[in-house]
Amino acid sequence: MERRDRAAVSARRREHQAERRELNQIPWRQPRNPYAPTEILSADQIESIHLASLRILEEIGVRILLPEAREIYAGAGADVDEGTQQVRFDRGLILGAMATVPPEFTLHARNPAHDVIMGGSWAAFATVGGAPSVSDIERGRRPGNFADYSDMLRLAQSLNVVHVLAGYAPEPIDVPVPVRHMVAMEAMIRLTDKAYFGFSLSRQRVLDNIEMIRIARGLTPARLDREASFYTVVNTNSPLQLDRPMLWGIIEMARANQVTCVTPFTLAGAMAPVTLAGALALQNAEALAGMALAQIVRPGSPLIYGGFTSNVDMRSGAPAFGTPEYIKAAQIGGQLARRYRVPYRSSNVNASNAPDAQSAYEGAMSIWGALTGHTNLLIHGVGWLEGGLCASYEKFIIDAEMLQIMAKYFEPEVIDDATLAIEAIREVGPGGHFFGSPHTLERYETAFYTPLLSDWRSFQQWEADGSVDATRRAHRIYQRMLAEYEAPALDPAIAEELGAFIAKRTEEGGAPIQ
Amino acid sequence: MERRDRAAVSARRREHQAERRELNQIPWRQPRNPYAPTEILSADQIESIHLASLRILEEIGVRILLPEAREIYAGAGADVDEGTQQVRFDRGLILGAMATVPPEFTLHARNPAHDVIMGGSWAAFATVGGAPSVSDIERGRRPGNFADYSDMLRLAQSLNVVHVLAGYAPEPIDVPVPVRHMVAMEAMIRLTDKAYFGFSLSRQRVLDNIEMIRIARGLTPARLDREASFYTVVNTNSPLQLDRPMLWGIIEMARANQVTCVTPFTLAGAMAPVTLAGALALQNAEALAGMALAQIVRPGSPLIYGGFTSNVDMRSGAPAFGTPEYIKAAQIGGQLARRYRVPYRSSNVNASNAPDAQSAYEGAMSIWGALTGHTNLLIHGVGWLEGGLCASYEKFIIDAEMLQIMAKYFEPEVIDDATLAIEAIREVGPGGHFFGSPHTLERYETAFYTPLLSDWRSFQQWEADGSVDATRRAHRIYQRMLAEYEAPALDPAIAEELGAFIAKRTEEGGAPIQ
Repeated sequence: MERRDRAAVSARRREHQAERRELNQIPWRQPRNPYAPTEILSADQIESIHLASLRILEEIGVRILLPEAREIYAGAGADVDEGTQQVRFDRGLILGAMATVPPEFTLHARNPAHDVIMGGSWAAFATVGGAPSVSDIERGRRPGNFADYSDMLRLAQSLNVVHVLAGYAPEPIDVPVPVRHMVAMEAMIRLTDKAYFGFSLSRQRVLDNIEMIRIARGLTPARLDREASFYTVVNTNSPLQLDRPMLWGIIEMARANQVTCVTPFTLAGAMAPVTLAGALALQNAEALAGMALAQIVRPGSPLIYGGFTSNVDMRSGAPAFGTPEYIKAAQIGGQLARRYRVPYRSSNVNASNAPDAQSAYEGAMSIWGALTGHTNLLIHGVGWLEGGLCASYEKFIIDAEMLQIMAKYFEPEVIDDATLAIEAIREVGPGGHFFGSPHTLERYETAFYTPLLSDWRSFQQWEADGSVDATRRAHRIYQRMLAEYEAPALDPAIAEELGAFIAKRTEEGGAPIQ
Repeated sequence: MERRDRAAVSARRREHQAERRELNQIPWRQPRNPYAPTEILSADQIESIHLASLRILEEIGVRILLPEAREIYAGAGADVDEGTQQVRFDRGLILGAMATVPPEFTLHARNPAHDVIMGGSWAAFATVGGAPSVSDIERGRRPGNFADYSDMLRLAQSLNVVHVLAGYAPEPIDVPVPVRHMVAMEAMIRLTDKAYFGFSLSRQRVLDNIEMIRIARGLTPARLDREASFYTVVNTNSPLQLDRPMLWGIIEMARANQVTCVTPFTLAGAMAPVTLAGALALQNAEALAGMALAQIVRPGSPLIYGGFTSNVDMRSGAPAFGTPEYIKAAQIGGQLARRYRVPYRSSNVNASNAPDAQSAYEGAMSIWGALTGHTNLLIHGVGWLEGGLCASYEKFIIDAEMLQIMAKYFEPEVIDDATLAIEAIREVGPGGHFFGSPHTLERYETAFYTPLLSDWRSFQQWEADGSVDATRRAHRIYQRMLAEYEAPALDPAIAEELGAFIAKRTEEGGAPIQ
């Protein structure tokens, strides 16, 4: 055999060996950040933002586009101008409402082993949500569709570092709009057993979501009313506006005692002031107004304070993510949420158009900003690209690696006589090595983090295997993960009941386009 | 013209426009981290590591391979075993020596505008050092050589976010060994005017370096003796061993009142215990032994505590970087250095074989660990690849972007009436936008970070320009930066004196191979 052939055979063999290896995932476990949150503003500075928000709510108010919501606010003492639809709130109303928000609650999953705690120093990582497009490096970029939506749910189920789901990743736009929410929810329930998400796109859709979640978890209405079983995200139309689908979502989710994450869409320089302080004052005012509505409807209903403040590129108007401004906003958002004792949501975001080095470093910057700020819910944790316009399979895996690193970083070091290892150091002595030391042999299998994606081989080994970079390795990993996917168990009676519900609601016309 | 031709012309035009744009660098300014350091261990836990280190030094000791160094230690009261060459230190000796280390000093550059402060919350970012190979994505990987060494110095000079130099990046192995240190130092002096670095590879080389630095800065010997004008790094041969070149370096640099960064090479599981606590106790013991030598030779001479603890992959023995263990070690290293009030060095490191997403996220993890741990000197700040075996041009630019983001993140937010922007929010009102607001127009030009490398355009614009990913953009940027490089002014008399010195020393045979 020629030397070159032998090398090629050997390279293929190594590659196959590598592919036979287990995919190295950390076990399922909700991470808890044991370190103090990073607080980059003083308590006085946080108070200044808080007071500015209260002045905005008192003096300017929020335009509330749903009459029912204006009535609810008015009933609680807010000052409603029916001409401009603007609602002004005195600080007593806002602070009274915020006093009933639960600081911590359990978000129940279909599989109780996948329940997560929202609040305190707990963190839960969610997939990308709301992306209209989807891509992988082989098939390229394409509009969101049901097949890719389903495959990304399979990945979300398979990745232990994904703790909860999020909105469409990507949106299955090949499913007719009137039934899309139900078809998508059915797939989410069937393909995953982690905690669910439902969009709040109209009152009817929210009610359909609530009923499907009740069926999925096999609950009585009374028990659903006691247990937070899914969540939605409501983005305000910044500045200072809440539209009808958002308000329906807040109202109906609160009535059902389910979770709303109120997330103002405050991009500094566009929908928010060009200063971070101003953008955060606006974010805080809008979040308080939205959260107050839920508490007025049902005091004690579960909420999450969503921070999404970033900035736009002032030359193009394009949104930017993972910037210094984003890091600061994510950390300050956490300070504000803690001021009100509300669980906090932030995101792993980037503005790259490819799952490349930019997507990785902007993502890493976002993750550090979010998690050092004690984010409880990290939405878009895996798979987001292009400022949210695309869900990327390779980015799913790149992000999973970064989040696994953070989850391991959150495991506190043990410092005691055994770990300080003075006896092992004495035995090995100057100039020795620890490879064969009993102290090492007792611990080496679980001593260190084992990566899912990173390749630590020598350049020569890596080159002999084809010089496969991280993005192409991520491609192989997600394909293998899909091939190895196993659907979670689902009681046939529940599947049948869900099917019957969807059939009935489809016959009724689903949810009309509005 | 055909539609396709027009599109191509338009794409080329946009590309040229993009290339004509300024390279967006932040201005030269030494960053200062205004936020509290992240302390993941309690004061008691740090004390446990400290006490374990003192026990290691008292009971086991360090093998000191240079007789002169053993004599110096013995003169200060250490217990020397000439048979095993092991030196044991009682804690009084170590703590007494550490008491004279300056907590903060100025590292002077040839250009005084490029002086940096070492200590406190100041940070300085250095290039990669010590890489035997070099690569770019067009020409591939090749042995280190003088042309690439010189080009990387030009990049170091051009990048404002690089504050100080480091060792060979890459090593110019085409320059004969006896004169390599002088030829390399001359190029460093000629091509850059930032604070210099010199390897400590033998006594003669250290003395040559000191003299060349004195000439470069145009100092009298007395003034050189007062001003820290360059630094070296001494890596211990872990575990618990210091070889002759390292000891010469510590001794001669201390005599000249120049800076040594003592950095134990404690890879957990190989040259250090498999537990992070044990690896850090060993790191700390070795650092204390090395730093004590400098203080015995010359109390008050400037030092930097170097942390380099990471772990190896226990299946292959390959070093790993940017891992959860690395992040923790970098942060705990900072806690230990602050315990002794010594400036702290850490690194931006990764184990990737390409300037890809892995190199970016492992680098980002390292940077966050290092900088939240209040690293004063970040070596390998730009350009490191392959666990240090290769200096990468594209990684230079990727890292520069990440460090620019961190430097901007370190600029504290101003929270006052003007930035809280209540009047602007009132003027814009619900549903408006801030693009044209006077509050925005007054501030938009400098409001946000402008990236060097990140591309925030829409997918469609990006695709029309050829879908150039971050690594390929980095390639273009470094080439353009080299094309636009301008050498810093150098007094011809100094250049002549340096030339004469090198000629004389070359005639004498340079520094013999040892």
